[in-house]
Amino acid sequence: VAKRLVCSSCRKSYAVREPRWRCQCGSLLDLEFLPRFDLLKIEDRPPSIWRYREALPIEEDGNIVSFGEGFTPLQRLTVAGKEVLFKLDYLFPSGSFKDRGAALLVSKLKEWGIRQVVEDSSGNAGSSIATYCARAGIECRIFVPRSTSAAKCSQILACGAQLHRVDGSREDTEQAALAAAEDTFYASHVWNPFFLQGTRTFAFEVCEQLGWRAPGTLAAAVGNGSLLLGAYIGFQELMQARIIDRIPRLVAVQAQACAPLVHAFDKGTSDIPPIQKQETLAEGIAVAAPRRGRQILEAVRRTGGCFIAVTEAEIQESLMEMGSGGFYIEPTSAAAAAGVKKFLLHHTPPGPVVSTLTGHGLKAPPRQFAP
Amino acid sequence: VAKRLVCSSCRKSYAVREPRWRCQCGSLLDLEFLPRFDLLKIEDRPPSIWRYREALPIEEDGNIVSFGEGFTPLQRLTVAGKEVLFKLDYLFPSGSFKDRGAALLVSKLKEWGIRQVVEDSSGNAGSSIATYCARAGIECRIFVPRSTSAAKCSQILACGAQLHRVDGSREDTEQAALAAAEDTFYASHVWNPFFLQGTRTFAFEVCEQLGWRAPGTLAAAVGNGSLLLGAYIGFQELMQARIIDRIPRLVAVQAQACAPLVHAFDKGTSDIPPIQKQETLAEGIAVAAPRRGRQILEAVRRTGGCFIAVTEAEIQESLMEMGSGGFYIEPTSAAAAAGVKKFLLHHTPPGPVVSTLTGHGLKAPPRQFAP
Repeated sequence: VAKRLVCSSCRKSYAVREPRWRCQCGSLLDLEFLPRFDLLKIEDRPPSIWRYREALPIEEDGNIVSFGEGFTPLQRLTVAGKEVLFKLDYLFPSGSFKDRGAALLVSKLKEWGIRQVVEDSSGNAGSSIATYCARAGIECRIFVPRSTSAAKCSQILACGAQLHRVDGSREDTEQAALAAAEDTFYASHVWNPFFLQGTRTFAFEVCEQLGWRAPGTLAAAVGNGSLLLGAYIGFQELMQARIIDRIPRLVAVQAQACAPLVHAFDKGTSDIPPIQKQETLAEGIAVAAPRRGRQILEAVRRTGGCFIAVTEAEIQESLMEMGSGGFYIEPTSAAAAAGVKKFLLHHTPPGPVVSTLTGHGLKAPPRQFAP
Repeated sequence: VAKRLVCSSCRKSYAVREPRWRCQCGSLLDLEFLPRFDLLKIEDRPPSIWRYREALPIEEDGNIVSFGEGFTPLQRLTVAGKEVLFKLDYLFPSGSFKDRGAALLVSKLKEWGIRQVVEDSSGNAGSSIATYCARAGIECRIFVPRSTSAAKCSQILACGAQLHRVDGSREDTEQAALAAAEDTFYASHVWNPFFLQGTRTFAFEVCEQLGWRAPGTLAAAVGNGSLLLGAYIGFQELMQARIIDRIPRLVAVQAQACAPLVHAFDKGTSDIPPIQKQETLAEGIAVAAPRRGRQILEAVRRTGGCFIAVTEAEIQESLMEMGSGGFYIEPTSAAAAAGVKKFLLHHTPPGPVVSTLTGHGLKAPPRQFAP
C-alpha cells in the first residue's frame, strides 16, 4: 500500500518515511493510503485499536507504542426520550479519547526515529502525548494554558514530560509550541495527520460493535475536531471497503461561549470568521480558530448534518445528570451530552444515534464537589 | 445451580434470595455455587466481565448493572530483568479494580430490590459503589476517613452519593458505617460475599488472555484482600472445571507501615495480631485489622506463596518509575509494582508472573507534581 502525505492546500505530496508535520507551503497535510479490513482476522484479535492492524499506517509491529488501549464500551442511555449509544472513550489509559490519536502518532514518531517532541493542548492531548511518549522513551515538552486543570498538569509531570504553563490564551499556547517546534519535532494533535489516523478507530469500533453497520447519526463535541474528522475518514473507508452502506449524519456540538464553527455553518461560509471567545466549562473544545475548521464544516455539510451550540447552563445541567447516572465525565464531555439532548428534543434523526464521552471526570473534578 | 450463603465460622447457611451481608452469629459469609464456563460462548461475547455470564451469580439479565466494564489490557513490562504481565485494572469506569466487585454487588442489590445502602472505604471502593449505585438508581451513603484524597471525594459526590468524612482512622470509619448499617443495608466490599464474586473475574480474564492457562505467580497489593481472595476463588473454579491445571503462587504485598498480614505470616500464626499502623502513601491498603485476614493467609500459604513488605521509599520509587514509563497509577498500585520488583530481585518464581495496577493516578495525584 503506497502511502503519502498530501498538502490540503497546494496538493504537493511527500513520502511518509520523511518526518514531516506540515507542507513546505505552511499548510496542513493529510495522509493518503488504502487501508485493508479482514473482518475474520479483526474479530479474532484482542479488543484494542490494534485489531484493525491492516488499517493502521505503521510499517513495523515493533514500532507500535501501546497499552492495549481501545475497544471502549458502547452504552445505551435514554436522552430526551430517545435511545442514544454513548461510547465510553474516557476509559482510555490517560483518561481521554486522545489516546486513539496519540497511540498512532507516537508509534509513527518511534518509526521515524524521533527522540524529542513538543506539543500544545488544553490538557488532554498533552497528557495523552506525554503518556505515550513516556511508554516510547521519547522526550517531550507540553505547553498548556495557565488555566489547565491541576489534575491534567500533574499527570503530564508524572509521565516525566516538561510542562510549560503559558500565560495567555489557548492560541498563545499554540504559538509558544510552534516557536519551540522550530528546533525539534511538533507532535501536534491538530497538525499531524497521524493523530487523525488514530481517531479513525472510533468509527471502526462503533461499526463493529453495531454488527458491522454504520450509525445513522454521530453527535460529538468539536473544538479542533480531531475525533469528528478522524471518525469521518474512518466511516468513508469502511464505506469504500463495502463494509457499511452509509455515512452517519454528523452533529457537531460547540459551547456557545466559543462557537466559531457554529457561526460559519449558520452563515453558510467555508471560512471561519474570527470570534471573541468567552469563558467556558468545556475547556477541551475552547478553540477560537480551529486549524482544520474548513475540513470540519465540509464533513458536516456533506453528511447532511448540523451544528449545535450549548450554553454553560446546559453543560452544567448535563454534567450533573450524567454524574447522577454514574457517568463521571469532565465538562467537555458533558457538552456533547447536552448537545445530543438539545438536538433530540427537536429532531428525530436516523438511528442508531451514537455519541461519545471523551474525558474522565477525574481530569477536572467539578468545583462544587470539592470536599 | 443451587446457591447459598455459608457462614465462615458457624457454617450456618442461607438462601441467596434473602438480602444478607453477615451471619446471625456475626461472622463473615461466603457464597457457594457451581459456576459454568462455556469457552466458545465466552469468546464470542463483548470484552467485559459479563462474558463469563454463567459464572456470575445474578439470576436475571435485567438486573445487571454495568458500564460494559472489564477485560482490561494485560501489558508486558520488564521488572528486575524479568518479564511481568501487568493487568491495567485502573481502566475501569470509576478508575479502579473495585468496579469488578461493585458491578456484581450492585447488580445483586438491584436483584434483592434494595433501595438504600451504606458503605465505607479508604476511597476507591466508595467511589466504585457510588458509581454503580448511581447507574442503578440506588441511594447510597459513603463513609471515608478525613484523609481520603479530594479526587475520590469529588467523584463520590458527583455520582450523587452522600459523603461522610469521618475524623479518625480507617477502622473508625468502618464503625461509623456499621452503625449506619443498623437501619439500612451494608454494601460492604469486605463483608459482602457478592463483592468477591466480582473480583473472581480477574482470574477468568487473566487465564483467557493467556490462552486459557494459569499464571505461575500472581503478585498483588493486599489490604482487605478483595482482589487476591476473589482471584484465588476464580482460579480454583477454573481448576475444578479443568480449564487450568494449576493455581498460581500468590505473592501478597503490604506497605511496611501497615503490614498486619506480613507479621502474621512471618510468625506462622493464623490469627492476626493487632498492629500500630503508621502513615503510608498506599492509602488503599492501609488496613490494620483485615476482616478476611485468616482467609488471605490461608490462600497464600496453600499456594506456596509469600508476603512482601515494601517501604515508603520503595513505593515512591516505583511510583516514579511506573509514571516515567507512562503507567500513571496511584501510590497503592505502586506498592504492588514495588513488591513485584523486590520479590523478583531475590526469586525466580514460576512464570508467567502476573501483577495488577489497581487504581488510576488521577485518583490521587502525587503532591510533588502539583503544578
